[in-house]
Amino acid sequence: MYNVQPGYGAPQTHHRAYSGSPNYSQQQPAHRVHGGGYPAAGPPPGADPQLWNWFSAVDADRSGSISVTELQSALLNGNWTNFDLDTVKMLMSIFDTDRSGTIGFQEFVGLWKYIADWQNVFRHFDRDRSGSIDGRELSEALRSFGYNLSPSLLTLIEHKYASEPAVGYGPPPGITFDRFVRACVVVKTLTESFQRYDTRRDGWVTLNYEQFMTIVLSAP
Amino acid sequence: MYNVQPGYGAPQTHHRAYSGSPNYSQQQPAHRVHGGGYPAAGPPPGADPQLWNWFSAVDADRSGSISVTELQSALLNGNWTNFDLDTVKMLMSIFDTDRSGTIGFQEFVGLWKYIADWQNVFRHFDRDRSGSIDGRELSEALRSFGYNLSPSLLTLIEHKYASEPAVGYGPPPGITFDRFVRACVVVKTLTESFQRYDTRRDGWVTLNYEQFMTIVLSAP
Repeated sequence: MYNVQPGYGAPQTHHRAYSGSPNYSQQQPAHRVHGGGYPAAGPPPGADPQLWNWFSAVDADRSGSISVTELQSALLNGNWTNFDLDTVKMLMSIFDTDRSGTIGFQEFVGLWKYIADWQNVFRHFDRDRSGSIDGRELSEALRSFGYNLSPSLLTLIEHKYASEPAVGYGPPPGITFDRFVRACVVVKTLTESFQRYDTRRDGWVTLNYEQFMTIVLSAP
Repeated sequence: MYNVQPGYGAPQTHHRAYSGSPNYSQQQPAHRVHGGGYPAAGPPPGADPQLWNWFSAVDADRSGSISVTELQSALLNGNWTNFDLDTVKMLMSIFDTDRSGTIGFQEFVGLWKYIADWQNVFRHFDRDRSGSIDGRELSEALRSFGYNLSPSLLTLIEHKYASEPAVGYGPPPGITFDRFVRACVVVKTLTESFQRYDTRRDGWVTLNYEQFMTIVLSAP
């Protein structure tokens, strides 16, 4: 099992998980820090100079905080494509802890670490160094997180998160970084939701329409 | 009830629905036509000249068929943003009926009509002519399709498909065209899946993990 930084996407994680709910609850106190509002002129006391430089580069309009648009412009996959809006929204929902709609410097520090940790995971599982994750690599990554999914579920995920549709009945192209992160967080979120309803621990859940739709629409 | 073109997103539709399955089944015979391969020089016999012109414009590299990248470059929302990759993949899964990985002219004709019909739906429900769909407009659209969702589900959809995260606890920005289409197709797909498992018609389903994950990951 890959010794991943405390369980990103893994069921045993103690890291703050994507809450997925529109009222943005379940944020950990450690990240309940002031968001934007720092003067663009200089870093807050004790700031890591390198991180402050990166933050300032992303903050293109020098407003002192990073907007969704600035974040999406700054986040690139290995093949130079931008992150999907849905991945950016997922990241905002995790790291915009004061719900200001922007990412302040302290929030940026958490976001940066999260992305760097995921990049290490991605590089580890991209065995052939192709810059994207194929079906076999995806399967190994999810298994290392503790998810033993059936071949048919793995194929569904491989197609859903591929950066292009498959041609014919062949395998789809690989999964880029940002979609790999989203796929892992989605599997984690859905599995946890399922487990919450599986109160008898027998592998079955009984759901009404409202519960079913809420679970699905709450995932990133 | 809005008299929508045969039920896009509506449960009573007879139109070809997004199958959502990675083996791309359930395509209607009417669209099982040859995909790419027309000589870039001229239109096939009987082609609508205007549609041929549009097709040729989208086919930037004059290959005779439209790739995913060409399609994504050509499809714009009212605010000039490109369609999300996930919407483009959804459209490809519906209209690339010969699974060539590209859209030929005959496939393009179906795709064009689908988008034009949805644009009419979008304009109809965008009551305030803002170019995007807000929570109230979304609720009216879904109700007209036959989906009476709870306020809390509507809020979830409004946030999930908004073009940006909400600021604070206020309402999110509106839903752009392509994400509106995806939201409606997702609600339709999930509702139909739920109904398929609700064999006693009592509003409850019992699912194991495999079934649950398959339903969710099969939706666009």
